[in-house]
Amino acid sequence: MEQAACLNQWPAGVRNRMNYRFSSRMKTTPRSFIREILKVAERPDIISFAGGLPNAELFATEDLARAAHAVISEDGHTALQYTTTEGYLPLREFIAARYRKRLGLDISTDEILITNGSQQCLDLLGKIFLDQGDPVAIECPGYLGAIQAFSLYQPEFYGVPLNENGPDTEQLETTLKTRHPRIFYAVPNSQNPSGITWSDESRRTVADLLQAEGTIFIEDDAYGELGFSGNRPPSLREYIPGQTIILGSFSKIVSPGMRMGWICAPREITEQAITAKQASDLHSNYLSQRIIARYLEEGLLDNHIRTINRAYKDQCDHMLACIRRSFPEDVTCTRPDGGMFLWLTLPDGCSSMELFERALAKNVAILPGLPFYTDGGGYNTVRLNFSNSSCDRIQTGIDLLGEVLEEYVRETGKSQACEGKK
Amino acid sequence: MEQAACLNQWPAGVRNRMNYRFSSRMKTTPRSFIREILKVAERPDIISFAGGLPNAELFATEDLARAAHAVISEDGHTALQYTTTEGYLPLREFIAARYRKRLGLDISTDEILITNGSQQCLDLLGKIFLDQGDPVAIECPGYLGAIQAFSLYQPEFYGVPLNENGPDTEQLETTLKTRHPRIFYAVPNSQNPSGITWSDESRRTVADLLQAEGTIFIEDDAYGELGFSGNRPPSLREYIPGQTIILGSFSKIVSPGMRMGWICAPREITEQAITAKQASDLHSNYLSQRIIARYLEEGLLDNHIRTINRAYKDQCDHMLACIRRSFPEDVTCTRPDGGMFLWLTLPDGCSSMELFERALAKNVAILPGLPFYTDGGGYNTVRLNFSNSSCDRIQTGIDLLGEVLEEYVRETGKSQACEGKK
Repeated sequence: MEQAACLNQWPAGVRNRMNYRFSSRMKTTPRSFIREILKVAERPDIISFAGGLPNAELFATEDLARAAHAVISEDGHTALQYTTTEGYLPLREFIAARYRKRLGLDISTDEILITNGSQQCLDLLGKIFLDQGDPVAIECPGYLGAIQAFSLYQPEFYGVPLNENGPDTEQLETTLKTRHPRIFYAVPNSQNPSGITWSDESRRTVADLLQAEGTIFIEDDAYGELGFSGNRPPSLREYIPGQTIILGSFSKIVSPGMRMGWICAPREITEQAITAKQASDLHSNYLSQRIIARYLEEGLLDNHIRTINRAYKDQCDHMLACIRRSFPEDVTCTRPDGGMFLWLTLPDGCSSMELFERALAKNVAILPGLPFYTDGGGYNTVRLNFSNSSCDRIQTGIDLLGEVLEEYVRETGKSQACEGKK
Repeated sequence: MEQAACLNQWPAGVRNRMNYRFSSRMKTTPRSFIREILKVAERPDIISFAGGLPNAELFATEDLARAAHAVISEDGHTALQYTTTEGYLPLREFIAARYRKRLGLDISTDEILITNGSQQCLDLLGKIFLDQGDPVAIECPGYLGAIQAFSLYQPEFYGVPLNENGPDTEQLETTLKTRHPRIFYAVPNSQNPSGITWSDESRRTVADLLQAEGTIFIEDDAYGELGFSGNRPPSLREYIPGQTIILGSFSKIVSPGMRMGWICAPREITEQAITAKQASDLHSNYLSQRIIARYLEEGLLDNHIRTINRAYKDQCDHMLACIRRSFPEDVTCTRPDGGMFLWLTLPDGCSSMELFERALAKNVAILPGLPFYTDGGGYNTVRLNFSNSSCDRIQTGIDLLGEVLEEYVRETGKSQACEGKK
């Protein structure tokens, strides 16, 4: 009511005339139909595998509450003030040292820029690398957030099919040689959406191909610490350091709400990213940088990550077991070694949008795979999130989904058989 | 040493070949020479009027430490998790209600989008409004952060001279009619850099001109709450609501390090900004949104703002008194009614870059005004910050600057007289 009253106070001329003209880039940026799906999925009566949330029960709330209080009460005059665009030096030092410890990489502190989650890295890299129409290679399926972020810079996407062990390297080679992409963006560890981790061999081959063409590789490593088997596959930084940009994040291992990520890139690239970052928002939330740095100083991170991985592995194993038991055999499924997602492929002719509708009628939410494809494919694919549901809810939800699938796949099979007879 | 070792491990081909090609927008984005100046100004032996920091001694550290601890320990599972792009609803409600209380504006909650400080508003508005080459009108001098943010979208800037009471409306009218700018960006209250506040009459005239042309007005109101006299000049939202976008910020009244600002705009614009924001970094730091909301709930803000204004008014008055006493008469100075800055104009022929060098030799840092001009002007202008220096340091610094100015202005006058004789 108040709203209507407000609108009526506008001078009529203004109210009627305003026909806003937005930039052309807004026309090519996919409006997230996921946002709409997730709104539905938030209903408390829904068992949702649609979202992409870490398990909040595992957040180190007590440790972080203590760290926050200490930082503000002991050094609030600094921690609440403006700071440098690059970010808090001890935090950047921690990140650089951790690359050395975990992956044997020599990273210098001035190759690290703190960002608002790794999503902002994508925006900054779009800003510094992409002119309108520039070719960009991306896995198919690829991370939706990257497709959205890069879309604002109006590139041409070239999808590289993702197989069980990594990207289709023949297709990648063809794309590199014929399209000359400015960048190849990928998530080699426990990918969002597919859960696939590239094999070591695949990494070596991709590095060789990229080196031959001088293509920049954006290695989005949001899930690198979430590996169930404890394997630490090499970063492409090891093979092609001058061409590799690693994106990291505390979202999956400390807190997503604090929006803390980083770019790790050769200095010349980091410098450009700093210029873009300064123009975009001056610097990342300094208080949160200080809180996380304080938390990290206490040395609790490794144990915390082990706890997360144990829980996620249980949830993933449980979801896989339920799927084996209750899904039709011709629905295939990835077997993630980490991360938060697995990926279904329905039989030909089945639509994941249709499955979404049918599952929602039984109060189960899934995420159709279409928006992860830049080439219009993926109509029969589905992303399932296992990190944010208890084993009980996983069992109930997957069983219900199994019933829906049984019926839907049978119907589709019949109607295809009929089509075949005509 | 380690760095050198690392570089030497790179395959020679890669090391030598990498010649990064960046986007064309990076060539037109001014690299901040201010960043370099501020680095110099941070030396502890320097009295700096160059920066733009609020007075950290006034931060409500105890209240914020308590709020942070309470939010995380009582509701950390939510406060550390991902949230909506729009931002925390109670925080947006607070902002909307405050516009009603302070300025009598009817703003609905869904016209508010929480951003990473008001700097990010500029990036988002650049994204949604500006195609390459689009005309943008901006005050001259204008806020440097806006020039940088918009530059990434490669517009054409048209400067509108800023007079004592607001923009030169004749020039604005000509610019609107001949250049048809997509937006007019300005800081009507206690402007950064000049400290000028537009008169009520000027606001009305500008609104009429913008309404006639249907031009979007971006009213950057980072300093609106920092008015020494308690005046609350009207927002242009009152006159042209469908065309006015207000940018707000908690940076100057709570904490800049938490990077909390907002866009307040008609729904259709806010919707586009939300799409751009989601692609850019998903959402603003949720923990900080919750901490600030908790702090605001306690009802301490109005008192806190009064404390800040009393302190800044004292510092400003003191700086003005020192200037009157020790600067040459032909150096003119604005008389701010709020904010954090005042603005000097040196006599013709004097260069603020030269003054910067001479002052630095006496351990005083100032900020040359050039980068605030999109039209290449302002060579003899200087921004001075009064919010972040004690009255003692202001006295010492301004006295030193007075000595430097006396000498420099005298020399310049002599050399000009000589030029005249030739």
